[in-house]
Amino acid sequence: SRELFVLTYGALVAQLCKDYEKDEDVNTCLDRMGYGIGVRLIEDFLARSAVKKCRSYSETAEMIAQVAFKMYLGVTPSVSCTSAAGDEFSLILDKNPLVDFVEELPAERASLCYCNLLCGVIRGALEMVHLAAEVTFLQDKLKGDAVTEIGIIFLKKTEDKKHKRN
Amino acid sequence: SRELFVLTYGALVAQLCKDYEKDEDVNTCLDRMGYGIGVRLIEDFLARSAVKKCRSYSETAEMIAQVAFKMYLGVTPSVSCTSAAGDEFSLILDKNPLVDFVEELPAERASLCYCNLLCGVIRGALEMVHLAAEVTFLQDKLKGDAVTEIGIIFLKKTEDKKHKRN
Repeated sequence: SRELFVLTYGALVAQLCKDYEKDEDVNTCLDRMGYGIGVRLIEDFLARSAVKKCRSYSETAEMIAQVAFKMYLGVTPSVSCTSAAGDEFSLILDKNPLVDFVEELPAERASLCYCNLLCGVIRGALEMVHLAAEVTFLQDKLKGDAVTEIGIIFLKKTEDKKHKRN
Repeated sequence: SRELFVLTYGALVAQLCKDYEKDEDVNTCLDRMGYGIGVRLIEDFLARSAVKKCRSYSETAEMIAQVAFKMYLGVTPSVSCTSAAGDEFSLILDKNPLVDFVEELPAERASLCYCNLLCGVIRGALEMVHLAAEVTFLQDKLKGDAVTEIGIIFLKKTEDKKHKRN
């Protein structure tokens, strides 16, 4: 049952809004917390999903949407590739369970990315399978957009980067 | 899937430990947050569990353990009545999923009631069905106890109190 999680997440966001005046700082904090969670969650994910290694960014994006989101949030975003190079993807959520109990953002919190933890979780989990990515909210129903859209831009693999540096 | 919840809860506790130096203050804050969650969660619980009205404190305690804990945490504590008057109960958890990723409390956080949110949730939910209760951790595996034990003391009904005051 997700409700206890969703309400607890709300309490976390509310606490961070108390702690930080600027929305930016709350967003950064949520992303950083999510990263720490993703780094640990990936092990659970790989163990329980028993999925095979993805052979393309496209497969990875589909895996996140169809297996990971389904497993942890009970919803399956649709995926679209948004770059000719095939390294940018959007996860489109018609329904975002994390905001079930949120009616709207308060006026003074207009720049808050309420669900930014999710971006951090995805980023952290990907990093543990040696994929560097930028993950951000591109649209958010909470902000009046028609859908909620998470953008994933895959960067050069961290191993490649290391080689370059050396 | 509970892991994302459990890790998010951990992030919440960690944040509060940053915010408050004293364990007491973290415990109070978790309890207060839990209360706010319980007040909202009860509606979801009543709607989805479709349980009948309890006719005794004993039935209520069993309901919390067998239906609510099962629904939201996936475990079923055992219940024992701990007072001759039949208004005090213990929920005994052999396994506490909320601490799945916690190895032990840091030495400087020896008085932290890591799962204190749960006490607040129970208290808040009970209050919404007109039952006043004190809910506290009596034992905690995280602190080296053999089991985790949540104590519930039912107080005079809030309606009774109101009448007294008037």
